[in-house]
Amino acid sequence: MGVEAYLFKIHMVVQSILLSLIIIYLASKVGGELVNQVGLPPVLGELLGGVVIGISGLHLLIFPEIGVDSSQSLIISFMRLTAGLRPENIPDIFSAQSEVVSVLAELGAIILLFEIGLESNLKDLIAVGTQSTVVAVTGVLVPLIAGTSGLIYLFHISSIPAIFTSAALTATSIGITSKILAELGRLDSAEGKIILGAAVIDDVIGIIVLAVVASLAKDGEVDFSKIVYIIIGASGFILAAIILGNVFNQYFVAIADQLKTRGELIIPAFIFAFAMAYLASIMQLEAILGAFAAGLVLEETDQRKELQKLITPIADILVPIFFVTIGAKADLRVLNPTIAANQAGLAMAAFLITVAIIGKLVTGLTVFGQENINRWAIGVGMIPRGEVGLVVLSIGAANDVLSQPQSAAIILMVMLTTFISPPLLRLAFSKSPTPEMTKNDINDLGKNSDSQTIQAK
Amino acid sequence: MGVEAYLFKIHMVVQSILLSLIIIYLASKVGGELVNQVGLPPVLGELLGGVVIGISGLHLLIFPEIGVDSSQSLIISFMRLTAGLRPENIPDIFSAQSEVVSVLAELGAIILLFEIGLESNLKDLIAVGTQSTVVAVTGVLVPLIAGTSGLIYLFHISSIPAIFTSAALTATSIGITSKILAELGRLDSAEGKIILGAAVIDDVIGIIVLAVVASLAKDGEVDFSKIVYIIIGASGFILAAIILGNVFNQYFVAIADQLKTRGELIIPAFIFAFAMAYLASIMQLEAILGAFAAGLVLEETDQRKELQKLITPIADILVPIFFVTIGAKADLRVLNPTIAANQAGLAMAAFLITVAIIGKLVTGLTVFGQENINRWAIGVGMIPRGEVGLVVLSIGAANDVLSQPQSAAIILMVMLTTFISPPLLRLAFSKSPTPEMTKNDINDLGKNSDSQTIQAK
Repeated sequence: MGVEAYLFKIHMVVQSILLSLIIIYLASKVGGELVNQVGLPPVLGELLGGVVIGISGLHLLIFPEIGVDSSQSLIISFMRLTAGLRPENIPDIFSAQSEVVSVLAELGAIILLFEIGLESNLKDLIAVGTQSTVVAVTGVLVPLIAGTSGLIYLFHISSIPAIFTSAALTATSIGITSKILAELGRLDSAEGKIILGAAVIDDVIGIIVLAVVASLAKDGEVDFSKIVYIIIGASGFILAAIILGNVFNQYFVAIADQLKTRGELIIPAFIFAFAMAYLASIMQLEAILGAFAAGLVLEETDQRKELQKLITPIADILVPIFFVTIGAKADLRVLNPTIAANQAGLAMAAFLITVAIIGKLVTGLTVFGQENINRWAIGVGMIPRGEVGLVVLSIGAANDVLSQPQSAAIILMVMLTTFISPPLLRLAFSKSPTPEMTKNDINDLGKNSDSQTIQAK
Repeated sequence: MGVEAYLFKIHMVVQSILLSLIIIYLASKVGGELVNQVGLPPVLGELLGGVVIGISGLHLLIFPEIGVDSSQSLIISFMRLTAGLRPENIPDIFSAQSEVVSVLAELGAIILLFEIGLESNLKDLIAVGTQSTVVAVTGVLVPLIAGTSGLIYLFHISSIPAIFTSAALTATSIGITSKILAELGRLDSAEGKIILGAAVIDDVIGIIVLAVVASLAKDGEVDFSKIVYIIIGASGFILAAIILGNVFNQYFVAIADQLKTRGELIIPAFIFAFAMAYLASIMQLEAILGAFAAGLVLEETDQRKELQKLITPIADILVPIFFVTIGAKADLRVLNPTIAANQAGLAMAAFLITVAIIGKLVTGLTVFGQENINRWAIGVGMIPRGEVGLVVLSIGAANDVLSQPQSAAIILMVMLTTFISPPLLRLAFSKSPTPEMTKNDINDLGKNSDSQTIQAK
C-alpha cells in the first residue's frame, strides 16, 4: 500500500471510529438509563444496548469474527452514503474499524480491572476474614465443578470449553451486589459485610481461575504442570502486588510529588498499570490480571482517593466500549426458542443459569458460628454476576474456545442473575428486621457507599 | 484470515499498544518535566520526547508512512523477544499497531481542540474587542502571505504545499502564551489581555485557514469557488455553534440533569463532540473544527466547569499521544547541517522561522489609540506557536502534501518560537513597570490563571 493510500485509510478509519463511538455511547446511555429507572444495574442496560445495536439487532456494530462481512454493517453503509467511502476500500476499513474498536474494548477491560483493584482494600477484607473466605471459596468451587461436570457429562462438551464456560460462573459482581445492598440499606449489616467481602475475594479467585483456563485454552489440552505454574504465577503476582504495595507506596508518592506538569498522577499510574498488564500477559497470565494487581498496589498509596477520582471519567468513556461490544458480538439468535435446532443450546443455557443460582445459594449454608445470621440472604446476595464473568467471556471469545450458544448462554446468565437478585434479596431480608445502626456502622456505611458510587455502573 | 488468526492478531495488537503507550507516556513525562524545570512549556518536551523515541532517535516508535519497515521498530523486536511474536506475523502487527496509535493520536487532537473550545469564551473576547481582532488578523495574514510567496518565489515550492506550510505559522498558542504571561505576572496587564484575546481569535481563524488549505490539498488544485465554500462553511459552522450555544444550553442541561448513571455528563458531551467532528468531516471541513465548535457550544452551558474538570484526565492520557507521535514521525535528520544535500531544506527552515517571528512581531505596530502600550511586548507575546500549528502539520502529513523538510521545518519552528519567547518577553516587559493591581484585576487574574492551569501542557 502506498503512503497516500495508507494515510487515506487512517482518515477513513478515524471517521468510522467516531461513528462507532457515537453509537456505542448512545446504546450504553439509553440502555443504562432505562434499566436504572426500573431499579436494575446500568451494566445490564449497557449489555442490552449492545445486543440491540449488534449482530442480534440492528447490525450497526458488527465484527468479522462472528462470520459476517462488511456488507451487513450499517456504519459502513452510512459512511458510503455520507463520507464518500468507496466500495473498493470497504473490506479494509471494515476490518480496521473492527480491530480498533476491539482494541479499545480490551483497553476498557484493562481500565475496568485496574479500577476494581483500586477499589479493593484487601487489608479491610482480612478483618472481615474467614467467614467471607469460606463463602467465596464455596461460591467459586460449586459452580465451577458442577458446571464443568454437567457440561461434560450431560451436554457432551469437551473439557476445555466446559471449564471455560463454568469459569464465567465463579465471580460475584462487586459493583452490582453493593448497589443492590445499598438500595436495601443493608450494606452495613452482618450479611452485607460477608457478601461484599466474599465478592471481592471471589473476584481475585475468579481472575486466577481465568488465567488458568485461558492458558489451557491456548494450549488446547489439560496439562497439570502448566496448571500448577499458572496458579502459582497468578497467586504470586497478586500476592507480590499486595506485599510490594507497601514498599512501592513510598516510591510512587515520591515520584508523583516530583512531577509538576499536567497528568502528574494519572500518567505514572497508567505507565505502571500498562507495564503490569504487559508483564502478566507475557508471563502467560492475562493482561487484566496485571492491571488488577496494579490497582491493588496503588490502592495502598496515599494518592488512592485522588487517583480514583481521575480514573472515573476515563473509565466512563472506555468501559462502556467493553460492555457494549460484548453485547454487540453476542448472537442471541442462536437461543431463539422458536427454532428447533436451538434446543440443545437452550437446555445448556437453562442448566448454566440453574448452576449459577444454586451454586451461590448454597454458600449461605457455609457460614458458621453466627446464630442470627440470614443464610438465605447471603446466598441470594452472592448471585449477581457481572464484570468478571464478562471478562471471562471476552477472553474465551478471544481464544476462540467458546461456541456461539456458550457465549450467548453466559450473557443470558449475567443478565438473568442480575435481574432476579434485587427482588429475591428484598424477599430474603424481609425476614430479618433492619438492624439498628451504631455510630461505627454509620461510618462503615459512608465508606461502603462511597466505594459503591464509584463502582456501580 | 480465519477467525483464530484474526483473534490472535487482536491479542498481539493489544500487547503492542500497551508497549506503545508505556513508551509514549514515558517520553512525554520525561520530556515535559525536563523542559518544565528550565521554565519552558511542557509541550516542547513532549515533542522532544517524541523525537527521541521516534524515527530521528531510538526507533522505538516508528510508522510505515515515513518509509521504514517493521524490522527497524524496537517495539516489534521487543515483542519478538518477550511476547512470542512470530516473524510471519510481524508485518501485520506492525501495520495494525501504527494504525491504532495513529487513530489514538487523532482522537487526542480531537479532544485537544474540544478542550481548547471549552476554554474559549468568545463573549469575553468581544469585550476585549477590536484591538485583539486587529492583532490576530495581522498575525495571521502576514505570515501566511509572506510565507506562501517566499516559499513559491524563493524556494520554488508549488502553491499548495507552500500555502499549507505557511498555514502552520498562523496561530499563536493559547496554552504556551498564557503560561509565559502567567509566569511573568502579566496576564492581567493591558498587553496580556490583548495577547490572549488575539491568541484565541487567531486559533479560530487558523482553524478556518486549515479547513481551506486541507480542502485544497485534497483536490490538488486551487479552486476559488471551493475556497469560498469552505470559508463560508467553516465560519458558518463556528458562528452557528456560537449562536446555537445559547439555545442548546437548555437542552444539554435538561438532558444531563435527567441522567442518573455514571458518565451522565461526559458521555453526552462526547457524543456531541464526536457527532460535530463527524459532521465537519463529511462537510469537507476537518474533524477538529467540529470538535472545537462543540467545545465552544458547551462552554456556554452551566456545566462548563464540571465538564472541564472531567475532560482534564481524559485529555491528559490522549493529548500526549498526539504530541509525541508528531515528534516521533518527524525526521529531523533531513535538516542535519553536516550533510550538503540538506542545504535547501535548512535555508527553507531558516526562512520559515524568520517569517514566523517577524510576522507576529509586526502585530504590535497595529495596536491603536493606546499611548502607553508596550507594542514590542505584544509582538513578542504573539510569537509562540503550538497546538494548532502541530494540528496543521499532522493534517498536512495525513494528506501527504508536506515533504519531510517541510514537516521538519514546521516542528523546528514550533520548538524555536516556544523556546525564544520567554526570555524575549521578559526583556520586552523589563521596559514597562509591573502594573499595580486593582481588586478587579485580581479577580481577572484568578479567572485567567484558572484557565491557564487547565490549558498549559
